[in-house]
Amino acid sequence: MENALLIRPVAHIRTDFSDKFGIPRQSGRVPALMGKIVFEPEFRDPDALRGIEEFSHLWLLFDFSQSHRDSWSPTVRPPRLGGNKRIGVFATRSPFRPNPIGLSCVKLEKIEHSAKEGTVLIVSGVDLLDNTPILDIKPYIPYADCRPEATGSFAEEQKDYRLEVKFPSPLLELVPEDKREAAMACLADDPRPSYQQDEERVYSMRFAECDIHFTVSGNTLTVTGVDV
Amino acid sequence: MENALLIRPVAHIRTDFSDKFGIPRQSGRVPALMGKIVFEPEFRDPDALRGIEEFSHLWLLFDFSQSHRDSWSPTVRPPRLGGNKRIGVFATRSPFRPNPIGLSCVKLEKIEHSAKEGTVLIVSGVDLLDNTPILDIKPYIPYADCRPEATGSFAEEQKDYRLEVKFPSPLLELVPEDKREAAMACLADDPRPSYQQDEERVYSMRFAECDIHFTVSGNTLTVTGVDV
Repeated sequence: MENALLIRPVAHIRTDFSDKFGIPRQSGRVPALMGKIVFEPEFRDPDALRGIEEFSHLWLLFDFSQSHRDSWSPTVRPPRLGGNKRIGVFATRSPFRPNPIGLSCVKLEKIEHSAKEGTVLIVSGVDLLDNTPILDIKPYIPYADCRPEATGSFAEEQKDYRLEVKFPSPLLELVPEDKREAAMACLADDPRPSYQQDEERVYSMRFAECDIHFTVSGNTLTVTGVDV
Repeated sequence: MENALLIRPVAHIRTDFSDKFGIPRQSGRVPALMGKIVFEPEFRDPDALRGIEEFSHLWLLFDFSQSHRDSWSPTVRPPRLGGNKRIGVFATRSPFRPNPIGLSCVKLEKIEHSAKEGTVLIVSGVDLLDNTPILDIKPYIPYADCRPEATGSFAEEQKDYRLEVKFPSPLLELVPEDKREAAMACLADDPRPSYQQDEERVYSMRFAECDIHFTVSGNTLTVTGVDV
Protein backbone atom coordinates (compact mmCIF):
# COMPACT_ATOMS: atom_id res chain seq x y z
CA MET A 1 0.00 0.00 0.00
CA GLU A 2 1.45 3.34 -1.01
CA ASN A 3 2.79 5.38 1.93
CA ALA A 4 1.76 2.71 4.40
CA LEU A 5 3.80 2.35 7.56
CA LEU A 6 4.60 -0.95 9.22
CA ILE A 7 4.46 -0.61 12.99
CA ARG A 8 5.45 -3.26 15.53
CA PRO A 9 4.98 -3.44 19.30
CA VAL A 10 7.93 -2.27 21.37
CA ALA A 11 6.35 -3.64 24.56
CA HIS A 12 3.21 -5.09 26.10
CA ILE A 13 1.43 -3.81 29.18
CA ARG A 14 0.25 -6.15 31.95
CA THR A 15 -2.90 -4.99 33.74
CA ASP A 16 -5.64 -6.50 35.90
CA PHE A 17 -8.21 -6.42 33.09
CA SER A 18 -8.42 -9.62 31.05
CA ASP A 19 -11.79 -8.41 29.78
CA LYS A 20 -12.88 -5.06 28.30
CA PHE A 21 -15.86 -4.69 30.62
CA GLY A 22 -15.05 -2.24 33.42
CA ILE A 23 -11.99 -0.60 31.92
CA PRO A 24 -12.18 3.15 32.69
CA ARG A 25 -13.18 5.26 29.67
CA GLN A 26 -10.04 7.37 29.82
CA SER A 27 -6.59 7.12 31.30
CA GLY A 28 -6.13 8.82 34.65
CA ARG A 29 -9.76 8.31 35.75
CA VAL A 30 -8.71 5.60 38.21
CA PRO A 31 -5.29 6.56 39.57
CA ALA A 32 -5.01 3.31 41.56
CA LEU A 33 -5.07 1.15 38.42
CA MET A 34 -1.55 -0.11 37.85
CA GLY A 35 0.18 -1.49 34.79
CA LYS A 36 3.58 -3.02 34.08
CA ILE A 37 5.21 -2.31 30.74
CA VAL A 38 7.39 -5.20 29.62
CA PHE A 39 9.58 -4.60 26.59
CA GLU A 40 9.92 -6.97 23.66
CA PRO A 41 13.34 -8.64 23.56
CA GLU A 42 14.46 -6.41 20.67
CA PHE A 43 13.63 -3.25 22.64
CA ARG A 44 14.73 -4.48 26.08
CA ASP A 45 17.59 -2.00 26.33
CA PRO A 46 17.83 0.12 29.49
CA ASP A 47 19.62 2.82 27.47
CA ALA A 48 16.37 3.48 25.60
CA LEU A 49 14.90 4.65 28.92
CA ARG A 50 17.81 6.82 30.04
CA GLY A 51 16.42 10.00 31.61
CA ILE A 52 12.79 8.84 31.60
CA GLU A 53 12.72 8.98 35.43
CA GLU A 54 12.82 12.77 35.19
CA PHE A 55 9.28 12.81 33.78
CA SER A 56 6.26 12.26 35.99
CA HIS A 57 3.88 11.24 33.19
CA LEU A 58 4.16 9.34 29.93
CA TRP A 59 2.13 8.96 26.76
CA LEU A 60 1.46 5.44 25.60
CA LEU A 61 0.59 4.87 21.97
CA PHE A 62 -0.97 1.46 21.74
CA ASP A 63 -2.63 -0.96 19.38
CA PHE A 64 -6.40 -1.32 19.90
CA SER A 65 -5.69 -4.97 19.23
CA GLN A 66 -9.21 -6.18 20.10
CA SER A 67 -10.84 -3.66 17.77
CA HIS A 68 -9.34 -4.39 14.36
CA ARG A 69 -11.79 -4.27 11.46
CA ASP A 70 -11.36 -4.83 7.74
CA SER A 71 -13.19 -1.64 6.90
CA TRP A 72 -13.80 1.65 8.70
CA SER A 73 -16.99 3.48 9.59
CA PRO A 74 -17.11 7.31 9.49
CA THR A 75 -19.29 7.43 12.60
CA VAL A 76 -19.38 5.63 15.94
CA ARG A 77 -21.88 5.54 18.80
CA PRO A 78 -20.12 6.51 22.03
CA PRO A 79 -21.50 4.36 24.90
CA ARG A 80 -21.56 7.43 27.15
CA LEU A 81 -24.09 9.10 24.87
CA GLY A 82 -26.50 6.22 25.34
CA GLY A 83 -25.21 4.32 22.34
CA ASN A 84 -27.72 5.82 19.94
CA LYS A 85 -26.15 9.10 18.87
CA ARG A 86 -23.70 8.93 15.99
CA ILE A 87 -20.50 11.00 16.21
CA GLY A 88 -17.69 11.31 13.66
CA VAL A 89 -14.90 8.89 14.45
CA PHE A 90 -12.31 11.72 14.47
CA ALA A 91 -14.41 13.52 17.12
CA THR A 92 -14.12 10.54 19.49
CA ARG A 93 -11.48 8.37 21.14
CA SER A 94 -13.31 5.22 20.00
CA PRO A 95 -11.13 2.16 19.35
CA PHE A 96 -12.84 1.64 16.00
CA ARG A 97 -10.74 4.01 13.88
CA PRO A 98 -9.17 3.90 10.41
CA ASN A 99 -5.81 3.33 12.12
CA PRO A 100 -6.50 1.50 15.42
CA ILE A 101 -3.98 3.42 17.53
CA GLY A 102 -4.89 4.57 21.02
CA LEU A 103 -3.39 7.28 23.20
CA SER A 104 -3.23 7.16 27.01
CA CYS A 105 -1.54 9.36 29.57
CA VAL A 106 -0.17 7.41 32.56
CA LYS A 107 1.85 8.30 35.61
CA LEU A 108 5.33 6.82 35.85
CA GLU A 109 5.55 5.23 39.31
CA LYS A 110 8.69 3.16 39.24
CA ILE A 111 11.39 1.61 37.10
CA GLU A 112 12.23 -1.98 38.01
CA HIS A 113 14.77 -4.49 36.81
CA SER A 114 14.49 -8.25 36.78
CA ALA A 115 16.51 -11.01 35.19
CA LYS A 116 13.41 -12.41 33.52
CA GLU A 117 11.82 -9.27 32.06
CA GLY A 118 14.69 -6.79 31.94
CA THR A 119 13.86 -3.18 32.76
CA VAL A 120 10.13 -2.63 33.19
CA LEU A 121 8.06 0.52 33.82
CA ILE A 122 5.40 0.53 36.52
CA VAL A 123 2.68 3.03 35.62
CA SER A 124 -0.64 4.08 37.12
CA GLY A 125 -3.93 5.48 35.87
CA VAL A 126 -4.10 2.93 33.08
CA ASP A 127 -7.14 2.21 30.92
CA LEU A 128 -5.79 -0.76 29.00
CA LEU A 129 -6.59 -4.41 28.59
CA ASP A 130 -4.00 -6.89 29.81
CA ASN A 131 -1.38 -7.59 27.15
CA THR A 132 -2.16 -4.56 25.01
CA PRO A 133 0.67 -4.02 22.50
CA ILE A 134 2.50 -0.74 23.18
CA LEU A 135 3.71 0.98 20.01
CA ASP A 136 5.52 3.95 21.50
CA ILE A 137 6.30 5.63 24.80
CA LYS A 138 6.84 9.40 24.92
CA PRO A 139 7.44 11.78 27.81
CA TYR A 140 4.51 14.05 28.72
CA ILE A 141 5.84 17.57 28.20
CA PRO A 142 3.63 19.86 30.28
CA TYR A 143 4.16 23.09 28.34
CA ALA A 144 3.21 21.44 25.07
CA ASP A 145 0.70 18.81 26.21
CA CYS A 146 -1.18 20.45 29.06
CA ARG A 147 -3.63 22.98 27.60
CA PRO A 148 -5.76 24.40 30.38
CA GLU A 149 -7.61 26.59 27.86
CA ALA A 150 -8.91 23.57 25.93
CA THR A 151 -12.63 22.87 25.94
CA GLY A 152 -14.06 19.49 25.38
CA SER A 153 -17.67 18.84 24.41
CA PHE A 154 -19.70 15.95 25.75
CA ALA A 155 -16.68 14.01 27.00
CA GLU A 156 -16.12 16.72 29.60
CA GLU A 157 -19.58 16.34 31.09
CA GLN A 158 -18.62 12.86 32.29
CA LYS A 159 -15.72 14.20 34.30
CA ASP A 160 -17.33 14.15 37.73
CA TYR A 161 -19.85 11.38 37.19
CA ARG A 162 -19.41 8.57 39.71
CA LEU A 163 -21.64 5.90 41.27
CA GLU A 164 -21.78 5.26 45.00
CA VAL A 165 -20.37 1.75 45.57
CA LYS A 166 -21.60 -0.62 48.27
CA PHE A 167 -19.09 -3.45 48.54
CA PRO A 168 -19.88 -5.59 51.62
CA SER A 169 -16.70 -6.30 53.62
CA PRO A 170 -16.85 -10.13 53.45
CA LEU A 171 -16.97 -9.85 49.65
CA LEU A 172 -14.35 -7.13 49.43
CA GLU A 173 -11.96 -9.33 51.43
CA LEU A 174 -12.05 -11.87 48.61
CA VAL A 175 -10.28 -9.32 46.36
CA PRO A 176 -6.49 -9.15 46.81
CA GLU A 177 -5.77 -6.38 49.30
CA ASP A 178 -3.63 -4.28 46.97
CA LYS A 179 -6.35 -4.37 44.28
CA ARG A 180 -9.32 -3.27 46.36
CA GLU A 181 -8.98 0.48 45.91
CA ALA A 182 -8.71 0.12 42.15
CA ALA A 183 -11.65 -2.32 42.01
CA MET A 184 -13.87 0.10 43.96
CA ALA A 185 -12.87 3.02 41.74
CA CYS A 186 -13.54 1.08 38.53
CA LEU A 187 -17.00 0.17 39.81
CA ALA A 188 -17.67 3.80 40.76
CA ASP A 189 -16.81 4.75 37.18
CA ASP A 190 -19.94 2.79 36.10
CA PRO A 191 -18.90 -0.07 33.85
CA ARG A 192 -22.42 -0.46 32.38
CA PRO A 193 -22.75 0.05 28.64
CA SER A 194 -25.02 2.76 27.28
CA TYR A 195 -26.56 3.88 30.53
CA GLN A 196 -28.50 0.65 30.92
CA GLN A 197 -31.09 1.20 33.60
CA ASP A 198 -32.28 -2.35 34.34
CA GLU A 199 -32.16 -2.60 38.13
CA GLU A 200 -32.69 -6.38 38.06
CA ARG A 201 -29.72 -7.08 35.88
CA VAL A 202 -26.61 -8.61 37.42
CA TYR A 203 -23.41 -7.43 35.75
CA SER A 204 -20.01 -9.05 36.11
CA MET A 205 -16.64 -7.34 35.97
CA ARG A 206 -13.55 -9.51 35.66
CA PHE A 207 -10.72 -7.82 37.55
CA ALA A 208 -7.50 -9.12 39.10
CA GLU A 209 -8.64 -12.71 38.56
CA CYS A 210 -11.93 -12.13 40.40
CA ASP A 211 -15.42 -12.04 38.92
CA ILE A 212 -17.21 -9.21 40.69
CA HIS A 213 -21.01 -9.35 40.35
CA PHE A 214 -23.16 -6.28 40.97
CA THR A 215 -26.45 -4.54 40.38
CA VAL A 216 -27.13 -0.82 39.97
CA SER A 217 -30.13 1.07 41.27
CA GLY A 218 -30.27 4.79 40.66
CA ASN A 219 -26.85 6.16 41.59
CA THR A 220 -25.88 3.20 43.79
CA LEU A 221 -23.93 0.14 42.74
CA THR A 222 -24.15 -2.89 45.04
CA VAL A 223 -21.75 -5.80 44.84
CA THR A 224 -23.70 -9.06 45.17
CA GLY A 225 -20.95 -11.64 44.85
CA VAL A 226 -17.27 -12.27 44.13
CA ASP A 227 -15.93 -15.46 42.51
CA VAL A 228 -12.23 -16.13 42.84
CA MET B 1 6.12 -9.59 10.94
CA GLU B 2 4.22 -11.04 13.87
CA ASN B 3 1.79 -8.57 15.49
CA ALA B 4 2.82 -5.83 13.07
CA LEU B 5 0.23 -3.23 12.20
CA LEU B 6 -0.15 -1.66 8.78
CA ILE B 7 -0.99 2.03 9.09
CA ARG B 8 -1.90 4.37 6.24
CA PRO B 9 -2.29 8.15 6.12
CA VAL B 10 -5.85 9.43 6.52
CA ALA B 11 -4.79 12.96 5.52
CA HIS B 12 -1.85 15.26 4.84
CA ILE B 13 -1.21 18.60 6.45
CA ARG B 14 -0.21 21.67 4.44
CA THR B 15 2.07 24.09 6.27
CA ASP B 16 4.51 26.89 5.42
CA PHE B 17 7.58 24.76 6.16
CA SER B 18 9.00 22.96 3.13
CA ASP B 19 12.20 22.45 5.14
CA LYS B 20 12.79 21.13 8.65
CA PHE B 21 14.97 24.07 9.70
CA GLY B 22 12.97 26.50 11.84
CA ILE B 23 10.05 24.25 12.73
CA PRO B 24 9.17 24.88 16.40
CA ARG B 25 10.32 22.10 18.73
CA GLN B 26 6.84 21.43 20.04
CA SER B 27 3.30 22.07 18.94
CA GLY B 28 1.67 25.15 20.43
CA ARG B 29 4.95 27.09 20.80
CA VAL B 30 4.01 29.34 17.87
CA PRO B 31 0.23 29.84 17.97
CA ALA B 32 0.28 31.84 14.72
CA LEU B 33 1.58 28.89 12.69
CA MET B 34 -1.31 27.56 10.62
CA GLY B 35 -1.91 24.24 8.92
CA LYS B 36 -4.58 22.83 6.63
CA ILE B 37 -5.50 19.17 7.00
CA VAL B 38 -6.61 17.70 3.68
CA PHE B 39 -8.09 14.21 3.78
CA GLU B 40 -7.17 11.38 1.46
CA PRO B 41 -9.98 10.55 -0.98
CA GLU B 42 -10.89 7.38 0.97
CA PHE B 43 -11.30 9.38 4.19
CA ARG B 44 -12.87 12.51 2.69
CA ASP B 45 -16.19 11.97 4.41
CA PRO B 46 -17.68 14.91 6.36
CA ASP B 47 -19.51 12.40 8.60
CA ALA B 48 -16.15 11.31 10.04
CA LEU B 49 -15.84 14.85 11.47
CA ARG B 50 -19.35 15.15 12.87
CA GLY B 51 -19.15 16.86 16.27
CA ILE B 52 -15.46 17.76 16.00
CA GLU B 53 -16.33 21.48 16.10
CA GLU B 54 -17.25 21.06 19.76
CA PHE B 55 -13.59 20.53 20.65
CA SER B 56 -11.14 23.40 20.82
CA HIS B 57 -8.00 21.28 20.43
CA LEU B 58 -7.04 18.13 18.57
CA TRP B 59 -4.29 15.54 18.72
CA LEU B 60 -2.56 14.72 15.48
CA LEU B 61 -0.76 11.41 15.19
CA PHE B 62 1.58 11.71 12.24
CA ASP B 63 4.28 9.91 10.32
CA PHE B 64 7.80 11.31 10.86
CA SER B 65 8.15 10.64 7.15
CA GLN B 66 11.53 12.37 6.81
CA SER B 67 13.04 10.38 9.67
CA HIS B 68 12.59 6.75 8.67
CA ARG B 69 15.56 4.50 9.41
CA ASP B 70 16.14 0.80 8.80
CA SER B 71 17.34 0.29 12.36
CA TRP B 72 16.72 2.05 15.66
CA SER B 73 19.09 3.57 18.18
CA PRO B 74 18.32 3.34 21.94
CA THR B 75 19.62 6.87 22.53
CA VAL B 76 19.34 10.21 20.77
CA ARG B 77 21.02 13.60 21.23
CA PRO B 78 18.37 16.27 21.69
CA PRO B 79 19.47 19.46 19.89
CA ARG B 80 18.29 21.52 22.85
CA LEU B 81 20.82 19.83 25.11
CA GLY B 82 23.64 20.97 22.88
CA GLY B 83 23.59 17.84 20.79
CA ASN B 84 26.21 16.04 22.87
CA LYS B 85 24.21 14.50 25.70
CA ARG B 86 22.62 11.14 24.99
CA ILE B 87 19.08 10.50 26.23
CA GLY B 88 16.96 7.36 25.90
CA VAL B 89 14.70 7.58 22.88
CA PHE B 90 11.60 6.88 25.02
CA ALA B 91 12.53 9.86 27.22
CA THR B 92 12.38 12.22 24.22
CA ARG B 93 10.01 13.30 21.46
CA SER B 94 12.74 12.75 18.86
CA PRO B 95 11.56 11.75 15.37
CA PHE B 96 14.09 8.90 15.32
CA ARG B 97 12.05 6.26 17.16
CA PRO B 98 11.42 2.54 16.73
CA ASN B 99 7.99 3.42 15.35
CA PRO B 100 8.29 6.86 13.71
CA ILE B 101 4.96 8.24 14.93
CA GLY B 102 4.72 11.80 16.22
CA LEU B 103 2.15 13.45 18.47
CA SER B 104 1.12 17.12 18.25
CA CYS B 105 -1.59 19.13 19.93
CA VAL B 106 -3.13 21.78 17.68
CA LYS B 107 -5.97 24.24 18.01
CA LEU B 108 -8.96 23.72 15.74
CA GLU B 109 -9.61 27.10 14.12
CA LYS B 110 -12.07 26.39 11.35
CA ILE B 111 -13.74 23.73 9.23
CA GLU B 112 -13.90 24.58 5.54
CA HIS B 113 -15.44 22.92 2.51
CA SER B 114 -14.29 23.11 -1.08
CA ALA B 115 -15.18 21.22 -4.22
CA LYS B 116 -11.53 20.39 -4.81
CA GLU B 117 -10.43 19.20 -1.36
CA GLY B 118 -13.67 18.33 0.37
CA THR B 119 -13.94 19.15 4.06
CA VAL B 120 -10.64 20.42 5.48
CA LEU B 121 -9.58 21.37 9.01
CA ILE B 122 -7.71 24.63 9.62
CA VAL B 123 -5.53 24.27 12.70
CA SER B 124 -2.98 26.47 14.48
CA GLY B 125 0.08 25.97 16.65
CA VAL B 126 1.50 23.39 14.26
CA ASP B 127 5.05 22.03 14.32
CA LEU B 128 4.93 19.98 11.14
CA LEU B 129 6.63 19.92 7.79
CA ASP B 130 4.49 20.61 4.74
CA ASN B 131 2.80 17.45 3.49
CA THR B 132 3.34 15.42 6.64
CA PRO B 133 1.14 12.30 6.53
CA ILE B 134 -1.51 12.40 9.26
CA LEU B 135 -2.30 8.96 10.70
CA ASP B 136 -5.06 9.85 13.13
CA ILE B 137 -6.98 12.81 14.53
CA LYS B 138 -8.40 12.64 18.05
CA PRO B 139 -10.19 15.21 20.18
CA TYR B 140 -8.19 16.67 23.07
CA ILE B 141 -10.15 15.71 26.18
CA PRO B 142 -9.08 18.16 28.91
CA TYR B 143 -9.87 16.02 31.93
CA ALA B 144 -7.81 13.12 30.61
CA ASP B 145 -5.11 14.92 28.64
CA CYS B 146 -4.39 18.07 30.63
CA ARG B 147 -2.33 17.11 33.69
CA PRO B 148 -1.32 20.27 35.53
CA GLU B 149 0.49 18.16 38.14
CA ALA B 150 2.90 16.71 35.55
CA THR B 151 6.57 17.63 35.76
CA GLY B 152 8.85 17.54 32.82
CA SER B 153 12.62 17.48 33.04
CA PHE B 154 14.88 19.39 30.69
CA ALA B 155 12.17 19.95 28.10
CA GLU B 156 10.41 22.24 30.57
CA GLU B 157 13.42 24.50 30.99
CA GLN B 158 13.03 25.58 27.37
CA LYS B 159 9.52 26.79 27.95
CA ASP B 160 10.24 30.51 28.23
CA TYR B 161 13.41 30.69 26.16
CA ARG B 162 13.06 33.16 23.29
CA LEU B 163 15.42 35.30 21.21
CA GLU B 164 14.82 38.97 20.58
CA VAL B 165 14.18 39.35 16.83
CA LYS B 166 15.27 42.38 14.76
CA PHE B 167 13.51 42.19 11.43
CA PRO B 168 14.02 45.45 9.50
CA SER B 169 10.72 46.69 8.03
CA PRO B 170 11.79 46.71 4.36
CA LEU B 171 12.73 43.05 4.70
CA LEU B 172 9.67 42.10 6.72
CA GLU B 173 7.47 43.57 4.00
CA LEU B 174 8.81 40.96 1.59
CA VAL B 175 7.08 38.27 3.66
CA PRO B 176 3.35 37.81 2.92
CA GLU B 177 1.44 39.94 5.42
CA ASP B 178 -0.52 37.08 6.96
CA LYS B 179 2.69 35.11 7.56
CA ARG B 180 4.75 37.78 9.31
CA GLU B 181 3.67 37.11 12.87
CA ALA B 182 4.38 33.41 12.51
CA ALA B 183 7.75 34.06 10.85
CA MET B 184 8.81 36.36 13.70
CA ALA B 185 7.72 33.84 16.33
CA CYS B 186 9.56 30.96 14.64
CA LEU B 187 12.73 33.04 14.56
CA ALA B 188 12.30 33.97 18.24
CA ASP B 189 12.10 30.24 19.00
CA ASP B 190 15.77 29.99 17.87
CA PRO B 191 16.00 27.69 14.87
CA ARG B 192 19.76 27.10 15.35
CA PRO B 193 20.83 23.53 16.00
CA SER B 194 22.72 22.60 19.15
CA TYR B 195 23.11 26.08 20.59
CA GLN B 196 25.58 27.05 17.91
CA GLN B 197 27.27 30.23 19.01
CA ASP B 198 29.04 31.37 15.83
CA GLU B 199 28.09 35.04 15.50
CA GLU B 200 29.49 35.26 11.97
CA ARG B 201 27.36 32.47 10.63
CA VAL B 202 24.42 33.33 8.37
CA TYR B 203 21.52 30.91 8.78
CA SER B 204 18.60 30.55 6.39
CA MET B 205 15.06 29.56 7.25
CA ARG B 206 12.72 28.63 4.40
CA PHE B 207 9.22 29.74 5.34
CA ALA B 208 6.12 30.56 3.28
CA GLU B 209 8.15 30.45 0.09
CA CYS B 210 10.68 32.97 1.42
CA ASP B 211 14.31 32.35 2.36
CA ILE B 212 14.92 34.35 5.50
CA HIS B 213 18.62 34.91 6.28
CA PHE B 214 19.78 35.87 9.76
CA THR B 215 22.62 35.98 12.25
CA VAL B 216 22.49 35.59 16.02
CA SER B 217 24.56 37.46 18.55
CA GLY B 218 23.95 36.76 22.20
CA ASN B 219 20.22 36.80 22.71
CA THR B 220 19.47 38.84 19.58
CA LEU B 221 18.59 37.50 16.15
CA THR B 222 18.96 39.91 13.24
CA VAL B 223 17.42 39.29 9.83
CA THR B 224 19.94 40.23 7.13
CA GLY B 225 18.04 39.37 3.97
CA VAL B 226 14.90 37.85 2.49
CA ASP B 227 14.73 36.10 -0.90
CA VAL B 228 11.35 35.59 -2.42
